[in-house]
Amino acid sequence: MLESLALKYDGQTLQVIDQQKLPHAEVWLNGTDPLKMYDYIRTLQVRGAPMIGVAAALSLACYAKSGATAEQVIKMAIHLREARPTAVNLMYAVDRVTELARTGFSAQGVEDIAVDIFKTDETLCEQISLHGANLIKDGEQILTHCNTGALATAGWGTALGAIRKAHEQGKKIHVYVDETRPLLQGGRLTAWELAKLGIPHTLICDNMAGMLMAQGRVSKVFVGSDRIARNGDFANKIGTYSVAVLAQYHKVPFYVAAPFTTVDALTASGKDIPIEERNPKEVRGEMSPQDAPVYNPAFDVTPAELVTGWVLDNGVFNKDQITSGEFLKR
Amino acid sequence: MLESLALKYDGQTLQVIDQQKLPHAEVWLNGTDPLKMYDYIRTLQVRGAPMIGVAAALSLACYAKSGATAEQVIKMAIHLREARPTAVNLMYAVDRVTELARTGFSAQGVEDIAVDIFKTDETLCEQISLHGANLIKDGEQILTHCNTGALATAGWGTALGAIRKAHEQGKKIHVYVDETRPLLQGGRLTAWELAKLGIPHTLICDNMAGMLMAQGRVSKVFVGSDRIARNGDFANKIGTYSVAVLAQYHKVPFYVAAPFTTVDALTASGKDIPIEERNPKEVRGEMSPQDAPVYNPAFDVTPAELVTGWVLDNGVFNKDQITSGEFLKR
Repeated sequence: MLESLALKYDGQTLQVIDQQKLPHAEVWLNGTDPLKMYDYIRTLQVRGAPMIGVAAALSLACYAKSGATAEQVIKMAIHLREARPTAVNLMYAVDRVTELARTGFSAQGVEDIAVDIFKTDETLCEQISLHGANLIKDGEQILTHCNTGALATAGWGTALGAIRKAHEQGKKIHVYVDETRPLLQGGRLTAWELAKLGIPHTLICDNMAGMLMAQGRVSKVFVGSDRIARNGDFANKIGTYSVAVLAQYHKVPFYVAAPFTTVDALTASGKDIPIEERNPKEVRGEMSPQDAPVYNPAFDVTPAELVTGWVLDNGVFNKDQITSGEFLKR
Repeated sequence: MLESLALKYDGQTLQVIDQQKLPHAEVWLNGTDPLKMYDYIRTLQVRGAPMIGVAAALSLACYAKSGATAEQVIKMAIHLREARPTAVNLMYAVDRVTELARTGFSAQGVEDIAVDIFKTDETLCEQISLHGANLIKDGEQILTHCNTGALATAGWGTALGAIRKAHEQGKKIHVYVDETRPLLQGGRLTAWELAKLGIPHTLICDNMAGMLMAQGRVSKVFVGSDRIARNGDFANKIGTYSVAVLAQYHKVPFYVAAPFTTVDALTASGKDIPIEERNPKEVRGEMSPQDAPVYNPAFDVTPAELVTGWVLDNGVFNKDQITSGEFLKR
């Protein structure tokens, strides 16, 4: 039995919480069928870079256990890999399954890999959280963007994991939560997680972060990532780049937190990260003209020069350690 | 008969369009009663710094013509003045009526003042639009925030007026429209106005402006203002400050456009501008936890050092002309 805030797997059935319905309803979806999992990932009912990797792998395990052949599993893995183009964790998870299916396929083997991805992610979160919490001092006010907590991972989360760890260490901290338009992962998910955990927080619109920094009310920024390139540039939820520029202007340290499964050594720089563009309806909502031309990139790229530190499972790295490639060693 | 996109006055009845219902419904509200006008302004059914001044003055004219005494008009004017604390145009308009009521009251006199405020605003918009359009070159891509068009004024608008003028001069321009959370004046109103005018535009979430600038897709920024202090600092819709920082970082010229009724020589700097905080529900919407702690400032202050030029009715001013006070001369 595997269980996280967003996922349950009992060896037979995979259930995932519908993250589009949160926080108003806790609806569990059956993700045993990888074709359905593909849709859940596309629609962001299942989301968070590490979580989509974990969920995809487990749904492939269910598929293998239901009698699918190696060929069928590979075909399905390739399909799932296409669900979202930016987060590399999905590719990492799916490719591990594909490799096994190509070299020595067994249903049990696929399940072992999927379970390992889940359990490893828990450990990675714990390591990231500890490294990140060490950077947070008593009394600090942390700004975060999107959702990088227990919903986004198999464990405590990445950036939000560090914040949670600092809180559990007894440090008095306050979290400013960017609502994160258009899909409001901050307003809906991060605010909900922080309330559940009893961590003091304030919800703001994304466009208020600058004013808060100008008032001296933000001492550090912690965000997650969907892909970190070899040079330290990283993709994350749209709006992260603006926060990074604002942080630099106001001399606020800016940290990105992620597990090694988010690091893509094959991607040289941010320019090489594919950025998904999503449906204009997400931006128009119900309020704006329903035929308004829209630009809706789901992610943006923050260049390494705007990052104070990379908080990975194997430590906190500075720009020199990124340039030298030291962060890639394990 | 006075008529603008957002207001109609026939000498008896004052009607204002409900800007919270736009663009999905064009609902006209009766604003003849200044107590109702107070509510409309509070709830942003009537909005836009110049427009709330015009609408308040005309509703005081209706009140005076219905038989209210000088004392009653003064009392009502003081009440209306409190509807919103940041935009100085409201104070300017109301104070002109109050002064008349104190020195030589007549219902006709109040109406003459209100009509003059309306007609003067039309002229001011025309002058601002011309000065602003002179700064816009063929082929430019302009980013704007909030709504500063015909809905926000008695005339063509301020920042959006300049954009409209450039378009009507035959310049091929493209407008990026910040949706402007939480009340979406960009998404609902500016996108609607631009579509009506046939001006090419793209709607974005506020947090996408940085990415567009990084891509080199924004050549200038034009915004309006609710109050310009003597030193050139100015208050405008929340999010403007972040755009100004992003523009500076990306070396994109940043202009603020407003009439002299927005300039408040009695306010020394941005620090002295009162910033209205509004209901948390505006930020929570229907999606975020309904008990989430929220910070909801309606405006922020952009310091003069981030402004390339002040586009006023009496010309375009640079920082030196602001420092020397030249922009205050008329």
